[in-house]
Amino acid sequence: MLKTVRYDGANLIILDQSRLPGEISFEICRTVEDVAEAIIRLKVRGAPLIGVTASYGLALGIIKYQGSVLDRDLYFQRIKNILASTRPTAVNLFWALQRMEDIYKQSGDLSTPELGRLLMSEAEQMFAEDIKINEAIGEYGQELLHKDSRVMTICNAGALATCGYGTALGVIRSAYQRGKIEQVWACETRPVLQGSRLTVWELLQDRIPVTLITDSMAGYTMKLGKVDAVITGADRIAANGDTANKIGTYTLAVLAHQHDIPFYVAAPLSTIDREIDNGDLIPIEERPAEEVRQIFGINATVPEVNVFNPAFDITPHDLIDAIITQQGIIKPPYLNRL
Amino acid sequence: MLKTVRYDGANLIILDQSRLPGEISFEICRTVEDVAEAIIRLKVRGAPLIGVTASYGLALGIIKYQGSVLDRDLYFQRIKNILASTRPTAVNLFWALQRMEDIYKQSGDLSTPELGRLLMSEAEQMFAEDIKINEAIGEYGQELLHKDSRVMTICNAGALATCGYGTALGVIRSAYQRGKIEQVWACETRPVLQGSRLTVWELLQDRIPVTLITDSMAGYTMKLGKVDAVITGADRIAANGDTANKIGTYTLAVLAHQHDIPFYVAAPLSTIDREIDNGDLIPIEERPAEEVRQIFGINATVPEVNVFNPAFDITPHDLIDAIITQQGIIKPPYLNRL
Repeated sequence: MLKTVRYDGANLIILDQSRLPGEISFEICRTVEDVAEAIIRLKVRGAPLIGVTASYGLALGIIKYQGSVLDRDLYFQRIKNILASTRPTAVNLFWALQRMEDIYKQSGDLSTPELGRLLMSEAEQMFAEDIKINEAIGEYGQELLHKDSRVMTICNAGALATCGYGTALGVIRSAYQRGKIEQVWACETRPVLQGSRLTVWELLQDRIPVTLITDSMAGYTMKLGKVDAVITGADRIAANGDTANKIGTYTLAVLAHQHDIPFYVAAPLSTIDREIDNGDLIPIEERPAEEVRQIFGINATVPEVNVFNPAFDITPHDLIDAIITQQGIIKPPYLNRL
Repeated sequence: MLKTVRYDGANLIILDQSRLPGEISFEICRTVEDVAEAIIRLKVRGAPLIGVTASYGLALGIIKYQGSVLDRDLYFQRIKNILASTRPTAVNLFWALQRMEDIYKQSGDLSTPELGRLLMSEAEQMFAEDIKINEAIGEYGQELLHKDSRVMTICNAGALATCGYGTALGVIRSAYQRGKIEQVWACETRPVLQGSRLTVWELLQDRIPVTLITDSMAGYTMKLGKVDAVITGADRIAANGDTANKIGTYTLAVLAHQHDIPFYVAAPLSTIDREIDNGDLIPIEERPAEEVRQIFGINATVPEVNVFNPAFDITPHDLIDAIITQQGIIKPPYLNRL
């Protein structure tokens, strides 16, 4: 699997996910602004990967910093704010930036090059940790699936959304290795098509059987008795278990409940926001109308039509049968267990 | 509003809906095979319009028939079969062909030109009747809506799906004239995008306020309290009220139920199939994988991925709060009232 983000000793090299699967191309990010732009434009996406990429971005910013040590604190805050303001919903971004800031504050009187190396080393460590976390999520999560399961997922919570292996797709990978996956149902995930573009591509590379459907087909597929479980990733989990994830996730949870199909969320602990009581308090990003009006740059509708384009929705905790983390499976009631 | 189908004295002129809204173009159908092809390729679509177009097709076939009167019965059956085998789900097609066959059988010893005129006159009459039926559906249906309603719909059950005015959109039109529509939520309706391409275009022409969402956003939009009713068309209604309609309709019905939002179906009586006890017996058309794999001819995924592409789903009667017909509103229990 291709590396989603890496530091080549001078710049960040980012796999441009907006062009997959038709084109495998890499974006060179030379500045913090380049990194922020790559996140905003969904060249880098997926809650865990956004967090790690922002950490690399902070380290890159300090490595390239030419100013005085005296002004460095202010500069650090400025580039941290640039990265923090890219996308509002996934909490991993703020968690990762906070972790980097803690390292920065504890670093003492380092020269800028020393500080740059320290922060880059922390980003590299977060990258390596993320893969191990996902493998642990996969290992725990596969226990929830029986032999020959047919699992539905939305968006891409895979190797491409993380530093490797994936969260929801990590569970699927781990289960597949044990002969527990008969079929993955990939919802295409309009408007940005992360399901058809990324999840299908990723699963076929690992020869995991996958069938693509439009988001509108999920209910009928469940009604036909063809789905044994739904597993999704998460962008932010409130203290009570309410979960923000890709728009359409809430609909899948309602449908799963209606059909007595278990609905699971797979996410690292860094996705849990204990400071937010419930899902109503999670900020939901609204993205440009053009994402809905156009597909691959072609007008799909009357260009001036009004559009509502929330990128995420909230699945209430009572529709979630388990939250799978690297430290184990959490079942309801979530409030104190999270 | 443009005429969706008409006979120009020599050929059928069909508004090519597969190119809307970017291009307003007409398809000239010179033969029965042309008409069948236009239906298969969704240039003409919408249950009521498919029925009327097939009737025009039969009449066209007889008008152009060059064979002997002796072979005419066999020829009629052949062209009827060609038209009947275009699409399996919408029962209006079979209803319309049956109505034409009844006229044919009762026509006595007419010459072929006389028979052609008779059948074409019947098709024209069905066209005119369909508009009146839709106006009656609209008139009855608007009673279900209160002032400033925000109504969600899927696919296009509008003037474009019929001979004019529309079924679900007929209700919305009629309600709008009475100040009862604050907002229409149009689901884009993947894979063929009848919502973004056709419903948005049609409503904006009438200046009815419409907001476009992807199908995956319906649940979240309802959860935000922004939807007062859901109204869809229908392709076939079984004797117990189970309803086949565009894929995604069932999901909307489940979501509406979850949010205590009334879910209405608007359709002419010709959509009711009393010979089928329940929805499980309605044949569901599966369409080519390319409709999902590609959008506007561009690959959206790995070209060889497996696809499930049912064009319709079944909404069970217990999720439908009312069926709106030209003879009035039918409420549960449907079994004897339909």
